Amino acid sequence: MDVISVIRTKRDRGTLTREQIDWVIDAYTRGEVADEQMSALAMAILLNGMSRDEIAHWTGAMIASGERMDFASLARHTADKHSTGGVGDKITLPLAPLVAACGAAVPQLSGRGLGHTGGTLDKLESIPGWRAALSNEEMLGVLRDTGAVICAAGDGLAPADKKLYALRDVTGTVESIPLIASSIMSKKIAEGTGSLVLDVKVGSGAFMKSRDDARELATTMVGLGNDHGVRTRALITDMATPLGGTAGNALEVRESVEVLAGGGPADVVELTLSLAQEMLTAAGFPDADPSKALADGRAMDHWRRMIIAQGGDPYAELPSAREQHTIMVPASGILTRLDAYAVGLAAWRLGAGRARKEDPVQAGAGIEMHAKPGDPVTAGRPLMTLHTDTPEKFAYAQEALEGAYDIAPQGTEFAVTPIVLERVV
Amino acid sequence: MDVISVIRTKRDRGTLTREQIDWVIDAYTRGEVADEQMSALAMAILLNGMSRDEIAHWTGAMIASGERMDFASLARHTADKHSTGGVGDKITLPLAPLVAACGAAVPQLSGRGLGHTGGTLDKLESIPGWRAALSNEEMLGVLRDTGAVICAAGDGLAPADKKLYALRDVTGTVESIPLIASSIMSKKIAEGTGSLVLDVKVGSGAFMKSRDDARELATTMVGLGNDHGVRTRALITDMATPLGGTAGNALEVRESVEVLAGGGPADVVELTLSLAQEMLTAAGFPDADPSKALADGRAMDHWRRMIIAQGGDPYAELPSAREQHTIMVPASGILTRLDAYAVGLAAWRLGAGRARKEDPVQAGAGIEMHAKPGDPVTAGRPLMTLHTDTPEKFAYAQEALEGAYDIAPQGTEFAVTPIVLERVV
Repeated sequence: MDVISVIRTKRDRGTLTREQIDWVIDAYTRGEVADEQMSALAMAILLNGMSRDEIAHWTGAMIASGERMDFASLARHTADKHSTGGVGDKITLPLAPLVAACGAAVPQLSGRGLGHTGGTLDKLESIPGWRAALSNEEMLGVLRDTGAVICAAGDGLAPADKKLYALRDVTGTVESIPLIASSIMSKKIAEGTGSLVLDVKVGSGAFMKSRDDARELATTMVGLGNDHGVRTRALITDMATPLGGTAGNALEVRESVEVLAGGGPADVVELTLSLAQEMLTAAGFPDADPSKALADGRAMDHWRRMIIAQGGDPYAELPSAREQHTIMVPASGILTRLDAYAVGLAAWRLGAGRARKEDPVQAGAGIEMHAKPGDPVTAGRPLMTLHTDTPEKFAYAQEALEGAYDIAPQGTEFAVTPIVLERVV
Repeated sequence: MDVISVIRTKRDRGTLTREQIDWVIDAYTRGEVADEQMSALAMAILLNGMSRDEIAHWTGAMIASGERMDFASLARHTADKHSTGGVGDKITLPLAPLVAACGAAVPQLSGRGLGHTGGTLDKLESIPGWRAALSNEEMLGVLRDTGAVICAAGDGLAPADKKLYALRDVTGTVESIPLIASSIMSKKIAEGTGSLVLDVKVGSGAFMKSRDDARELATTMVGLGNDHGVRTRALITDMATPLGGTAGNALEVRESVEVLAGGGPADVVELTLSLAQEMLTAAGFPDADPSKALADGRAMDHWRRMIIAQGGDPYAELPSAREQHTIMVPASGILTRLDAYAVGLAAWRLGAGRARKEDPVQAGAGIEMHAKPGDPVTAGRPLMTLHTDTPEKFAYAQEALEGAYDIAPQGTEFAVTPIVLERVV
């Protein structure tokens, strides 16, 4: 077996055998296949595609590159959620304790933000004391004690994916459905969850810009999960406009706590409940009523226990940015469009996100949106408030927001897009 | 300018601007663009192609990555030849002194063999004392004194190409006409020759397997050369069967000397004279008669002076391999096929070629062919003799030769393929 023949096979539109895939993933993990060889193969895969069998073998090989976790020792069914990433997507924060409060165990391995989408771990790290890095034993302990844990994936889980993801990020080979699907699913399957709900986002703020691409990605991942014995389903959800009223780390924690307290923005509540219902049904609790657990404070109780178990203080004041700048509504009417990508990019420029893996993020930076598409707006009132510790970035962030919203005359008919667009099982 | 946007442009079938190309080649040469990024870009170029303008800019950027040589101080017109590589292709050896004997100066920067095709420098290094590495001053000195020089390209010439070629070799991105054309032509244009004749080979033993691909490569390179002020033309020549009767280093030097002495295999003589005529015409000597210079010994005189000038002894005995093994003709008839690739691979396995750049080659190893397609053969008489210092490789080499030749019954009609198939100007 040699890497050039593997690259040539895919380059020339052939089908990679299971042996070729197993070999190349293993050899890449061991460092025998070099980065420059793997990136050429990734580009060939991106341009020439992979069959369903190839994707399944690729995923299997990435799982086999590391350890597999096992939650069999827990007496509870496990349910996990994965979002393909969007702007203002803080759903994991209220969702994990909510689902735990309804009876399932939620082992939620999360990531950090890169580019214009935020990362769940970055958000939680704005809570004083909270830490993302747990050993496998600590993770299992938090899960057993509190019913939910949100933490960083250990280095032992799908190391091939970790290496390949970092490579794809710098070689223009991210946007491949086979590579995205196998990357997500290898980690989730290795993690050992019994059931999984995928939130596949579509729209300007998502990786998938078209509904067809989102459906293909969702279908591919649902197939991979079920083939590996994980009860998997997916919701395709809207990411044309940001979720909720905030994009940024501490800002989103604050909004999540509002949801846990029974309030919060309607779209965040709706998506949290839809995903909770899917997770609970998949985990064997079809009769659970997550809206009740939000209303009666059980979800909030689980949140506090979960935060405390990872060193955080759920009562501490959250950090705020040093400077604020408000963008006013230029003309009265109805807000008909607020572009997710532009808001994500602006929040990133304000310091909420990072350009490189090594960069720190600002806990307080981000954007508050005072109106959502469909809302009436009044000239001269605040439309958005920008937060940052680095005010020299205001102009750069505002540049990203130019042309990012539309206001139509009062009385214009406007149908709000539903959050959940489609369900894939 | 950032490399990911350049990669994405080509990945998404866009056209690279001159600025993008200049930047990416320069940044790659300086090490700012990493190998894994360049290999992803190379794969995207291989799969999505480049326009004529893109190829011209790419070539220009590779020339600009290093120094340009200048032969203006010579009182003679310069002519160079480049072959895209084949099996038994020793033509440069008799050709350079022959053209020099007819009045042009021949600055011939050559390479080493990799894979199944031999390298001119490897062949010449089988001559005791001869050395390939010359400084620019030494090269100019030999050229001025003897009219011809065959040596390794200095590190200063198109360093971007040197780096990119090594990368393509290990990443399955060699077989791209835009990348092959720009690689060859950047070196030849930077070398500063006034005219250039390209020998574009087609057939099993060549990179180009189809006539259409060979024509596209030839046309692309002729256009690039003429656009840069180098009078360039190409011959498309047959590489379905090896050139001459030998493949191997010292074996091919011996055969070349036979040609210089007025003998040698008919196909080698024919191609040498065809290329010599093209070079001399392009260099401004349309009335030169290279066949006369072969017959009257002037070419041989130039050969000896050239070898001596680079430390070699043209009268020394050439090295022989320690062991020989003869393959007999299995049945009498007419040899109708002798596959170039199989012979090249067998010679390589015997030790004539290298698997990695760092490997040494065996001077004496290779294959003598006692018949060419069209020749009558007699059962039990020698068909090929294999030479090697590592006799444990005989079986491995013979394996490559299985099914490599066909013998038809005596009296079968057989038309020998001409060597020169097409001329591109």
